[in-house]
Order: sequence, then structure tokens, then C-alpha cells
Amino acid sequence: MDSVKTLLPDSALPTHWYNLAADFPEPLDPVLHPGTHEPVGPEDLAPLFPPALIEQEVSTERWIPIPDEVRQVLLQWRCTPLYRARRWEEALGTPARIYYKYEGVSPSGSHKPNTAVPQAFYNREAGIRKITTETGAGQWGSSLALACRMFGLECLVYMVRVSFEQKPYRRAFMETFDATCIPSPSESTEAGRAILAEDPECRGSLGIAISEAVEVAAQSADTSYCLGSVLNHVLLHQTVIGQEAREQLEAVGESPDVIVGCTGGGSNFAGIAFPFLGEGLRDGRLPRVVAVEPAACPTLTKGPLAYDYGDTAHLTPLVKMNTLGSSFVPPGFHSGGLRYHGMAPMVSHCRKLGLLEARSFHQLETFAAGVGFAQAEGILPAPEANHAVIGAQREAERCREEGRADTILFNLCGHGNFDMQAYSDYHAGKLHDYDYPNEEIAMALAGLPSL
Amino acid sequence: MDSVKTLLPDSALPTHWYNLAADFPEPLDPVLHPGTHEPVGPEDLAPLFPPALIEQEVSTERWIPIPDEVRQVLLQWRCTPLYRARRWEEALGTPARIYYKYEGVSPSGSHKPNTAVPQAFYNREAGIRKITTETGAGQWGSSLALACRMFGLECLVYMVRVSFEQKPYRRAFMETFDATCIPSPSESTEAGRAILAEDPECRGSLGIAISEAVEVAAQSADTSYCLGSVLNHVLLHQTVIGQEAREQLEAVGESPDVIVGCTGGGSNFAGIAFPFLGEGLRDGRLPRVVAVEPAACPTLTKGPLAYDYGDTAHLTPLVKMNTLGSSFVPPGFHSGGLRYHGMAPMVSHCRKLGLLEARSFHQLETFAAGVGFAQAEGILPAPEANHAVIGAQREAERCREEGRADTILFNLCGHGNFDMQAYSDYHAGKLHDYDYPNEEIAMALAGLPSL
Repeated sequence: MDSVKTLLPDSALPTHWYNLAADFPEPLDPVLHPGTHEPVGPEDLAPLFPPALIEQEVSTERWIPIPDEVRQVLLQWRCTPLYRARRWEEALGTPARIYYKYEGVSPSGSHKPNTAVPQAFYNREAGIRKITTETGAGQWGSSLALACRMFGLECLVYMVRVSFEQKPYRRAFMETFDATCIPSPSESTEAGRAILAEDPECRGSLGIAISEAVEVAAQSADTSYCLGSVLNHVLLHQTVIGQEAREQLEAVGESPDVIVGCTGGGSNFAGIAFPFLGEGLRDGRLPRVVAVEPAACPTLTKGPLAYDYGDTAHLTPLVKMNTLGSSFVPPGFHSGGLRYHGMAPMVSHCRKLGLLEARSFHQLETFAAGVGFAQAEGILPAPEANHAVIGAQREAERCREEGRADTILFNLCGHGNFDMQAYSDYHAGKLHDYDYPNEEIAMALAGLPSL
Repeated sequence: MDSVKTLLPDSALPTHWYNLAADFPEPLDPVLHPGTHEPVGPEDLAPLFPPALIEQEVSTERWIPIPDEVRQVLLQWRCTPLYRARRWEEALGTPARIYYKYEGVSPSGSHKPNTAVPQAFYNREAGIRKITTETGAGQWGSSLALACRMFGLECLVYMVRVSFEQKPYRRAFMETFDATCIPSPSESTEAGRAILAEDPECRGSLGIAISEAVEVAAQSADTSYCLGSVLNHVLLHQTVIGQEAREQLEAVGESPDVIVGCTGGGSNFAGIAFPFLGEGLRDGRLPRVVAVEPAACPTLTKGPLAYDYGDTAHLTPLVKMNTLGSSFVPPGFHSGGLRYHGMAPMVSHCRKLGLLEARSFHQLETFAAGVGFAQAEGILPAPEANHAVIGAQREAERCREEGRADTILFNLCGHGNFDMQAYSDYHAGKLHDYDYPNEEIAMALAGLPSL
């Protein structure tokens, strides 16, 4: 019997998160105050985040302990399986050995609970009663709703309006866990009202929803804001993925030649890649690392590295990142989780340091790759994860052409069970590709803050 | 760290299916030919099923080996986890220890692939090129589509029309695996045309869809029919569930005082219960076993044990089972997988022998139990599985009242990711209970064949 999966016992769940900031050859650029453009201190972030998360945000400690209560909840579905994609390798006719880490076994079907759980935990520890957040496709909102329910917190989710309407089932999922879900832009915030006054039909964006959630959190001492990607502490929490994968690959005598992840805000990518990058920076043997993004929102491949806001209303601090401009609204392709104008500062920093390669793909080719993967492996990926799938497939095809038996590792960050409308449309021939939004990007970049 | 889940290594995947027929104190009643009413022989079943499955259908061997190629595919997601429901126990305030076996980790999200895979395998071995089947909620059709794709078979699914319209995403899932999905009743069969001639608006039923699928299979030598529940060989394939659960409970030093499963056709229930019942029959220490069904389709609690047809058009053989009458069309409640007029002959036989207790619950109380379970455990059950959840909850409440620390085991046969419309309706107060359909049952029972 060929083993296709590698499981780990509960005892193998990492006890610490890994912080790549400890191993960067040069430090991250400072985060700047949106008003003064001066570096922010912890006190500037206090209205939004509890102290423990602010500390993690700025930490350069290599290993940060995971609280027992958080590990206890993570153990519900972790350690997640690592699969060898034997049937897919055969279908692709590649000599490569392809492994994928499968985060779809979590209760909400993606990697997002890895950070939702500790964020809810630290907020409860700090005496916070209520959390606000934004969500695009709904993966993050669902995960935070679940985590808040487990730690007895209220949860208010601003959901990008176009997704709110397209994905009523995600809302039903959040409501099952007692969260409140509001379509964004909404009349409930100043930021939302300002947008609606200009465009009553506005379909919303992650940048707008962030503005609304941040505005509400900043107004009450017992309310915090949580973000599902981009920030250093969020990426940190995802490093359980790569640490487990490393141990699982070691158990089968492998180490990856190339690691592939999809990038929206950057967190699932960081989760799989950072522990390997850190090790490579320490021992000088770096694996190739490939970040895959949608051609219609090409943050890493087309966006300059610049200081920019995380949201549309410019309530967030300024961070140095690859960005398409905070006013950029990506076209309506189906990977809602990848429709963000910016990229995590730590992932952007990796790009600058030459630690990763970035590629972009068009929508239809990502779905074709995802269907091929599903037919071989039986798991239907989320549209976001299809970007990692096509990235891994291109590497496998390269191996076929070069006659090389590389070891490819990719992160299958979630299943597509809540994205079946996208697959329906794909099967019916209703999906199409979007051109690179070059003009829109140029306009949005023209509005970058001058420092 | 309290361990909440028990995993098993690949090597623990059962090598044999367990056949309860070997341990029944009295044998099952024979299956009768629909025309002659004489016991059928293997040759009567040959137009529909390959020889290996016919052999399993009538076997009284206790252990039937699982082919290596089947085990290899099952290993993709098996062994499935066994969870201790610590947070739910706490929420219920019960001294009981509650364990649940979670079959939702399979690629289609339920226990159904456990039998879809061997059925596809044996058909391919027999040179069959195409499979027909029926599906209600879509769990079975999805699982068979997946299995057929893996073994290179065509797959034609007749989907009950009301579900076809309510659940377009299940169709998209099947199409991802290249299956063809037709709403039933359809114009493509004699059985379908006859129904439509009488009622052009007919919403369909599992009984009708079975008639259509059987008719198509019977017409071509290279086409077989597959059923997702009810038959002996289907129940047999599900016994991996109970065998694994037994080993997992043993690993934590437990044996179940009571075992709970939901019953539609009976296969997930048999999967969890039969290995324990067999052991109990052999050593004289039987656990309590509770079968839970919808009040609106109360096959075990209100249906007599009688010879009846498995389908509406009376193309199938006659089997001795608890039945509500083959013309009974259950009301439109949300557990499509439990909307069947009959019950597996082996489960019916257990009822007759006093090996199980049967209970029925109304729709709203099952959803309330499912939401409570989800809030505690993080997993949103399928509406069908909510029947097992409420059954386990009632046992836990009994333990609370009696101050007893029983060990309760139940089968969480699938997740609700594809059933979010039902949860949306529940949250919006749009779901309602159905009265016991006493009159409809009386009418349908009046039409039972007289032998």
C-alpha cells in the first residue's frame, strides 16, 4: 500500500510560532502613522489591538510560544494532513514528487482559523467583549465567527457587498455561530456613508470593509478589530502550517526543492513558506519559493514597493508593501480572498530580498488546473487555492520537460465547498478572463501618499 | 493538553468488511422476484450488478476482504477521526462522555464514498463502462461521480427534481467529476415519462429516480446500476466506520454503552453499529443501539415489516423491510438523504430481533440540536446528521437526569457545507415542522403487494 498521506500525532502540534523577522538579513521598514507619517508606537495601535498582538506585531523574537488554550482549540483539526499527489503526478506525467498540505480540514474549510483562534483568545484575555472585522469571500468572517463563539466574544463582520449577495451561505455559516454580518459599504459607519453618497450602487471592496470595521472598533474601548491577513502577527500564526509540513516531509525523507503558495494578503503563503525560508536563511540552503496571484490583481508582479494605506478611507497606518494603490478596486473575478490591493509587508520584504519569485495567472487557467487536480485527487480546491494548484502544476510540467524529479510542496489552503457557484459558472462557460487592469492600477498608484 | 481526537495510522484501515449476516441468530428473509414472487437467484440480479457485488449481497461470510486497490483510494481520507465532544458535553452539562466518528472529512463530505469506491471498482473489474444511479440531496451522486472518475467509468445520475432545483451546487460538484446529472422524473425513461404524463409538475422522489436509473441500466450490457444505501453490500462497505471507531475507543480505554446513528436507507447507521452488534451477538454483551429518523418519514417507528418494492415503478425485487409503502412521497423537509419510504432489510431485521431502538424527531428540534453542536464543536453537521446529534443529545440529557456517566458514540455522517440554504432558512425562521404523514402512509401501505 503506497501511503498518500502523512499524519502527525497531537503531540507534534508546534508549541511556538516561527517569526521570520528574526532571520531577515535586513529589518522591515517601520510602520508610519497615517496622520503624522512618523513611525507608530504600540500606543498608536492600542485602540485597535490587544497588547499581546501588538507585541507580536513588532517582535523580532524567533520563537513565540502558543498559549495552551489556543493549542487545545487548534487540536480539533490540527495537525492537518500532508498528501503526496500520486494520482495527479500520474495525470500530469511528471517525474516530480508533489506534496500538498491540506488546510481544508479546518471547521471553516481553510487556514483562516489558525489565526482567528489566537486573535479571539488574546482579545478575550485583554477583556475585550466585541470584535469587528471585514470579509471578502467569507472565509475569514466564518473563521472569526467560530473563534469568537468559542471564546465568548461578540462578532461583527463587514462583508464586501458583492460577496454578501453572491454568497448567502457564508452569511448563514457566520450566523450559525451568532455573528452579525453587514453588507459593506453600509450606512452604519461614516466611511460607509461617504462611499454610498458618492456611489449608492457601490459593490464594495476589502479596503472599504476594513475602513468600516476599523472605524467601529476605534470608537469603543471594549471593541477590537481583527484582520485576517497582511499583518505580521497574522502571518506569524499561520506558521504552524510550514512547521508541520517540514516535520511531515522529514518523516518521509524529503525536503522541498520548490514551495508554492497563493497570495492575496499573503498569510497562507507565509504560513507554508516562512519556516522553510527561515531555515534556509540560517543554513544557507534556500529552497525556491513561488508566490502565485491573479492576473487581475497582480500585486506582487506589477505593484511597486511603496508606503500605502491598508484601507480605502485611510484610517490604517501606512505600511511598506507591494501595492496597486489603496483606491484600486479589483475586477469581479471569483477568488474573493485574493482581491486586495496590497501585500503583507513581510511577504513584500521577501520579494525585495529576492527570497521569492512571483507569478500571475488568468482565471480560466486556474479553474482548469483546479478541476484537473480535483479529478485526480478527489478534493475540490477553493478558487484561491487553484492559484497554488496551477503554480505547482507549472513546476511539475517544467520537471517533465527537464526530466527532473524535484520535490514540490504546495499549500492547498482551502476547499471549494462554498464556492460552487464559481464552478457552476465555469462548467457553463460563463467565466471569462480579465485583462491586466493596467489603467486602473496606474490611476490608483498616482494616488499613493507622498512621504 | 486534553486530547479531543483519536487518529489511526494508515495501517489500521480495516482489511476486511464485517458482515452482520454471519452473526444473525436467524437468517434474513429471501429477496423475491418482482414478477414471480419467487426467491431471486444471482442470475436475476446480473443485469444490474457485477458478480462480486451480487456475491457480497447474499454472503453469510463474516469477513470479506477489501481489495488493495479500494483500500488505496480509501486511504486518501481514512481512517477518519474519532472526537471526544468535550465542549459539547460541557454545554449540555452532562456527566456522559460523548464520542463522535466524523465522516465529513471524505472528499464529498460524507460516508458515501466508503461504498461508492468499491462499487465503482467491482464494476470496472467486471468490464462495465457506465454506471447509473439516483440521488436525493446529492451526497450519493457526488460520491459516485468521484469514484467513477477514479476508475474511468461514465456516470449518469438521476437527481430528484426538487433537489436538482434547490441544490445546483451539488450538480456542479458532480459535473466537476464529469458525471451527467438529469432531473428526475425525466423524459429519458419510460418510468419517468409515465410519471410526467400523470403529473407534469412532479417534484420527484428517490423511488422514482431509482426506477429511472434501474431502467437505463437494465437495457445495456455495459451499464450497471449502483445504489447508495439499503442493500446488504452497501451496508457491508460502511462497516469500516464502526471497526475504526471500535479500535479508536479501545485506544482511549472506552467501550460504548449506547450507539446512535441516523437512518434514511440505513447505511451510515449500519456502518457504525454493525461491528459492535456483531461483537455483542458473539459475546453476549450488546450495547444499546438507537436509530434516529425524521418524524415526517418515520419508516422504523411507524412502518410495518413487510415485503415491498424499493422503487415506485416496481422494477426492483421485493425485499422484507420496514416500509411506508413504495408510493409514499415524503414531505419536503431538508434532510433529502432521509426521504426514503423503506429501510435496509438488515436494519429492519435488527429491529425485528430487538437489537435496536428507533426514535423520530421533528425538523426544528434537529436543527436546534445541530446548531448547538456546531457552536460547541465547530463542525456544522448535515441536516441528516442532525438527527444523530439530537439522538445523542437526548441520551446525554438522560445521563444528566440519572447522574450516569455513560459512554455515548454517534456517527456524524457528514458536514452541512452543501446544505447552507437549509440553515439560512432555519435562521430566518422559514423552516417548519411537518405532522406525521399518517394519512399518506395509510394510503401507501394499502398498496403494499399481497404475496
